[in-house]
Amino acid sequence: MTGTPEQAETGTPTPFTAEDYAARMRRAAESAAGAGLAGLLIAPGPDLVWLTGYRPVETERLTLLVLRAGHDPVLVVPTLEAPDAAKAAGGPALTLRDWTDGTDPYGSAADLLGPAGRYGISDNAWALHLLGLRERRPDLDQVALTRALPMLRAVKDAAELGRMAAAGAAADAAYQEIRKVPFAGRREREVAADLDALLRRHGHEQVDFTIVASGPNGANPHHEAGERVIERGDMVVLDFGGLKHGYGSDTSRTVHVGEPTDEERRVHDLVRAAQEAGFAAVAPGAACQDVDRAARAVIADAGYGEHFIHRTGHGIGVTTHEPPYMIEGEEQPLVPGMCFSVEPGIYLPGRFGVRIEDIVTVTEDGGRRLNNTPREMATVD
Amino acid sequence: MTGTPEQAETGTPTPFTAEDYAARMRRAAESAAGAGLAGLLIAPGPDLVWLTGYRPVETERLTLLVLRAGHDPVLVVPTLEAPDAAKAAGGPALTLRDWTDGTDPYGSAADLLGPAGRYGISDNAWALHLLGLRERRPDLDQVALTRALPMLRAVKDAAELGRMAAAGAAADAAYQEIRKVPFAGRREREVAADLDALLRRHGHEQVDFTIVASGPNGANPHHEAGERVIERGDMVVLDFGGLKHGYGSDTSRTVHVGEPTDEERRVHDLVRAAQEAGFAAVAPGAACQDVDRAARAVIADAGYGEHFIHRTGHGIGVTTHEPPYMIEGEEQPLVPGMCFSVEPGIYLPGRFGVRIEDIVTVTEDGGRRLNNTPREMATVD
Repeated sequence: MTGTPEQAETGTPTPFTAEDYAARMRRAAESAAGAGLAGLLIAPGPDLVWLTGYRPVETERLTLLVLRAGHDPVLVVPTLEAPDAAKAAGGPALTLRDWTDGTDPYGSAADLLGPAGRYGISDNAWALHLLGLRERRPDLDQVALTRALPMLRAVKDAAELGRMAAAGAAADAAYQEIRKVPFAGRREREVAADLDALLRRHGHEQVDFTIVASGPNGANPHHEAGERVIERGDMVVLDFGGLKHGYGSDTSRTVHVGEPTDEERRVHDLVRAAQEAGFAAVAPGAACQDVDRAARAVIADAGYGEHFIHRTGHGIGVTTHEPPYMIEGEEQPLVPGMCFSVEPGIYLPGRFGVRIEDIVTVTEDGGRRLNNTPREMATVD
Repeated sequence: MTGTPEQAETGTPTPFTAEDYAARMRRAAESAAGAGLAGLLIAPGPDLVWLTGYRPVETERLTLLVLRAGHDPVLVVPTLEAPDAAKAAGGPALTLRDWTDGTDPYGSAADLLGPAGRYGISDNAWALHLLGLRERRPDLDQVALTRALPMLRAVKDAAELGRMAAAGAAADAAYQEIRKVPFAGRREREVAADLDALLRRHGHEQVDFTIVASGPNGANPHHEAGERVIERGDMVVLDFGGLKHGYGSDTSRTVHVGEPTDEERRVHDLVRAAQEAGFAAVAPGAACQDVDRAARAVIADAGYGEHFIHRTGHGIGVTTHEPPYMIEGEEQPLVPGMCFSVEPGIYLPGRFGVRIEDIVTVTEDGGRRLNNTPREMATVD
């Protein structure tokens, strides 16, 4: 971690090298062995991106990275796509085993697996491929990667934290600018389009969500952005993020069109206090559920407990949703380098909602926010 | 099917109703029973879109449609997302069973399943969810939907064929216009951006791919579009498509910057003849592999067999890649209403490639192309 968020936003990070990816694959295979697994089966998606830098989309054609401690990493890949795989940053660290249409990729993958045992498999691997492998190797067992090794990608190193900070700073810059655009009289999706453009202008190569939930729509935490025309007097939940240099941003602020009522201000203050309490609970060794409990207690004590209808947070990294989850029952201890959201909310059906969210990283002695815009309720026009 | 492609392109189709979706779900459950399955487990993605009109993205939170003959369709859905599910066009035909963070969605889904048996599961269902269900119901077995019921979505009805024709006509319009833009001196990705804009201008709500593979890049069938500057004398493979009104387009033409050499013209003519032969083999009752064989024979007979390194085609509908596949070994008979690509190619490593692709639908007495732009090699500037 170097520099201020502003500096972080402007620089282009040094690309990860084949050696970086080789080291990640080695560590992953060793973690798997340490957890009693025979190896890992990695599908296209965030696991594969993180381990190899290779970004194909998952399709009906099998692409699968096989990692086993003491063996070289092998990527089973359609012949058509082998040239792209070889060109990926981690390509030089991979042995490619390509297969052509009409041949059996599952047999090819199955041959790479050991005599018996249990394999961790990417959460998002397709059922088609898992069942295809099982047919060839009914002697093997599989477990979802986030069940077996939930923290595989959770702890970010310095180079990753630099990217996370840059993504957060870019999202903050987008928030500061969106407050200046007109809200009243425009449709939610128009403001959402502004947010999308701002995130891209600040260096996001991918925008994952631009929630603009006005008035009663704010009471649905998963409302995205629709045709509703924003009116004076509306509360508006803004929740947006995506990827910059391959790492995620995700921040929420709730703004008001014109002056809020006393009740709106009180609910907003409450969510802000809950967010503060959740952040204050972040420290090495604390459990994930402690962050949830701290934020939830503030809201429950004020009588709004039934209106905080989701977990307090989720991990973030090469994807905008990943373990660890800040939720009751999650006893995973926090470790320096973990990054996750702290995002309590209150949702009053038919009326309005409030959510405030920062990405936080665990430090040696507490937490550090990667979003640093004001959490006071802003008024917009 | 009504109207010419031009008319088809301009109209807005009548939306599918809850009754339409209810009928699809009923037919799907009956097909499953007919195939000896206890039911179907449908994940977010094209199967769910086709059966319900509901379009969530698949995440770590379980959303699963359970279909069993003689039972009402039930959608297991996160509480947060239930309002969106209810608002989907097929929402009124669904019973929602929502679950909140911290509760066990797999137990909830498992309770819906019968005493024993085998379930078809969406190909793209996440391993996380399949393994979660298996843990709760180790007595049940699963099979990939495209293995169990490969033709579930393959035969399009009249309303679907109208949408397919409109998507094809829109892609054709994009091709006619892209021929007029400058190629020489511009990067592949700039021409790809033009193609993207043209597809959207002609009504695509989603662009899935805009391949611009120039010169030696054309020899990699899966090259997308990169930084290479297109030069005079290049062959350029254009392959693009996406969704319009929810249904897919996918067409390829290979153009030449300036005048081609005799060899380039000969290879292009050969691919064109192969595409024609593949199309001519389309008829009710013919096998999928017959289409592949017909196209491949033309190329193999001319001595280029080793350079046609992929299958001849793939089905298309609510997604741009789905069964049936036109490939050796696929004995599935063609049925009127099926839609798929016929796209032979020749790839000469380090030199150039040629691919020509139309979407074709099976009629009562043969095939009908949904792409109708000239297949002669066009020259561009």
